[in-house]
Amino acid sequence: MNHGPATVGQLLREIHEVGRDPRRGGYSRFAYGPAELELREWFVEQAARRSMDTETDRNGILWAWLPGPGGSCEQAVVTGSHLDSVPGGGEFDGPLGVASAFAAVDLLNARGLTPQRALAVVAFPEEEGGRFGQACLGSQLMTGAMDPDRALGLHDADGISLAEALTGAGVDPRHIGRDDEAIGRIGAFVELHVEQGRGLVDRGQPVAVGSSIIGHGLWRLTVTGQGNHAGATRMTDRRDPMVAAGAVVVAVRDVARTVQDARATVGRIEPTPGGTNVIASRVEVWLDIRHPDDAVVPMLVATVTERARAVAAAEGCEVTLVEESYGGSVRLDRSLRDRVGAVLPDAPHLDAGAGHDAGVLAEVVPASMLFTRNPTGISHAPQEQVDDADAESGAAALADVLQDLLSGPSPRQTL
Amino acid sequence: MNHGPATVGQLLREIHEVGRDPRRGGYSRFAYGPAELELREWFVEQAARRSMDTETDRNGILWAWLPGPGGSCEQAVVTGSHLDSVPGGGEFDGPLGVASAFAAVDLLNARGLTPQRALAVVAFPEEEGGRFGQACLGSQLMTGAMDPDRALGLHDADGISLAEALTGAGVDPRHIGRDDEAIGRIGAFVELHVEQGRGLVDRGQPVAVGSSIIGHGLWRLTVTGQGNHAGATRMTDRRDPMVAAGAVVVAVRDVARTVQDARATVGRIEPTPGGTNVIASRVEVWLDIRHPDDAVVPMLVATVTERARAVAAAEGCEVTLVEESYGGSVRLDRSLRDRVGAVLPDAPHLDAGAGHDAGVLAEVVPASMLFTRNPTGISHAPQEQVDDADAESGAAALADVLQDLLSGPSPRQTL
Repeated sequence: MNHGPATVGQLLREIHEVGRDPRRGGYSRFAYGPAELELREWFVEQAARRSMDTETDRNGILWAWLPGPGGSCEQAVVTGSHLDSVPGGGEFDGPLGVASAFAAVDLLNARGLTPQRALAVVAFPEEEGGRFGQACLGSQLMTGAMDPDRALGLHDADGISLAEALTGAGVDPRHIGRDDEAIGRIGAFVELHVEQGRGLVDRGQPVAVGSSIIGHGLWRLTVTGQGNHAGATRMTDRRDPMVAAGAVVVAVRDVARTVQDARATVGRIEPTPGGTNVIASRVEVWLDIRHPDDAVVPMLVATVTERARAVAAAEGCEVTLVEESYGGSVRLDRSLRDRVGAVLPDAPHLDAGAGHDAGVLAEVVPASMLFTRNPTGISHAPQEQVDDADAESGAAALADVLQDLLSGPSPRQTL
Repeated sequence: MNHGPATVGQLLREIHEVGRDPRRGGYSRFAYGPAELELREWFVEQAARRSMDTETDRNGILWAWLPGPGGSCEQAVVTGSHLDSVPGGGEFDGPLGVASAFAAVDLLNARGLTPQRALAVVAFPEEEGGRFGQACLGSQLMTGAMDPDRALGLHDADGISLAEALTGAGVDPRHIGRDDEAIGRIGAFVELHVEQGRGLVDRGQPVAVGSSIIGHGLWRLTVTGQGNHAGATRMTDRRDPMVAAGAVVVAVRDVARTVQDARATVGRIEPTPGGTNVIASRVEVWLDIRHPDDAVVPMLVATVTERARAVAAAEGCEVTLVEESYGGSVRLDRSLRDRVGAVLPDAPHLDAGAGHDAGVLAEVVPASMLFTRNPTGISHAPQEQVDDADAESGAAALADVLQDLLSGPSPRQTL
């Protein structure tokens, strides 16, 4: 390795200006868009500085490799996260995990570690679903959780298909889908991520171990009424889907408040045609619904739908519901978690309210997560924050975990 | 004139495919966009077929001239409407008035009329405000109701400025603004328009005379909360502006329902950042508020704002309000209306719930309106309709009115 060790802060400052969104605030780094492609170049640069070979796999996932003894990539210890963001998101969600991974590689190198097996740093595309509406798209394609034909039917807000975006990034869309070769070489996956709630702030700790990932679904609820003129149509003659949609948004929150640990959010709403002087003909309302208990989510969806139908009917409108995505709660691998917990005895164990690629990978390989403290507790917004000292604590914790997995027994063998 | 008379139906069929919007349904013909520019070419063609000279004036308004005796353009009788549409609008709102104008020219020609003064057909740009958010932009610039510097600050949804759009259409943005020369040559303006409500349907009549245009304002209400993660943020920790905005939309309708003849509509709503898995940080809600009594509109706005502040405060959110545009109710010129009414004794007189360029011109010249029946009563939506027979009745009525104004005393002299 031909460089001095880099801190997480130094690494993140290199990409501090990439993908800033002056309109929304924060960052908009959409998968395969200019900002994310620039971050991918930065990833390749970082790998090169550490003499790691890079590859982009069939599903657009970036890998940087330090092969094990004899050049083996078997039973590899894999770490990393994603580079894309939500629209107007924070600086750390995703890139913190990638920067911490490279910083941890430097720490292991400085410690003079002789690994027993390969180490890879990885970056998954479209973790946020910020462009194509499908969270964890890259990892879901790799594990087969997402059907490649369905993925190829996805389009972004400008009508650009996933196939076009992949082709533009040099990935052949004909070859996406479950990748047993990529899965087969992973001995364990460890994702470090900025915490997205107040768990560490409340506990006064810099780093946590993930215990589970809350179940998470996205539904598109369409309210249909009668488009008309905003001036010429009497209030009594209207079937205005926007009024119904407004009542639906309030009802969604009210339903979620009645159920312990439930979360339900409308973050996106789109009236058609959307003119200021036009009664809309239909309004699309995206429902993000989560609960740690998989049995509760369908009940929440059913209750929300029932309430939506009632408020829509009161406006002479109709409601249809389409499930866009759903993933149940994931308990992260118990053996791996115990091993990580033994390396980091002071770290609390936290549930993640957000979805992560680690949760997708957990279906096929041992996967674990670390969280770094976010002093604001705010995420998916420009106010997301990580203090420099905590970032270094996170990288050191990750290095400790990787060191254990690279030098102790192979994680898969011990599980 | 070197052609046979055209019917309104024939003329509209020539542009039946221009600007169709497969996504929203109906038509999206935005000022200075490809579809509206194609309609402008069609306008110039129609003028040429009738040996009318065309000009595009300083404000991008299209004129087609049949000069009066001795080539005079003084005291001209002007008729026409607009070519742009709302997003996903109907086929007739705007183009019906232009097509009826050309059809009326043909009818006058077939009648062998010898005009005493000039006749012009006109098409005003951005009547709907569908691109730059400012309704009746062309006529407001001409009359001075819109400050040219303020207009030059307008941008469309893609960030393209009005100046850029004008330049692209061959209009020099440095010369926009009040146009006394254009105003000075108008003796009277008569705009035929598709009816946008059910007045004619309810009365079983094909054509009406306009009596007034209801006052109309547009306000942008911004609800600000705290952007955050949709999964990691407990329901009790949220300040979600989308929930507040939903309640505001319902409140707007509820307020309007309590006041006789009031109309209040939210047709456009924009959360920022707008991600499906993100609690929004702010939501912009556009309020279209109208009432025939100018004294009532500020009361409506104040009541809506007060209600909005209350529902937002309950969510820990804040509200700001910006007036985007406002025009008071316009009583159309009484003398001209009496003269038009005498020509069309069977036509009922109707208030217009929608704004029109005729209402803007009424501030500086005698202006009148005719309405053609819309059997659905629906407007600003694909279901807007005009039956062929009604369209011809409208053109015939317009021809009768124009004939009277062209051959009788000059409208300005008689007023």
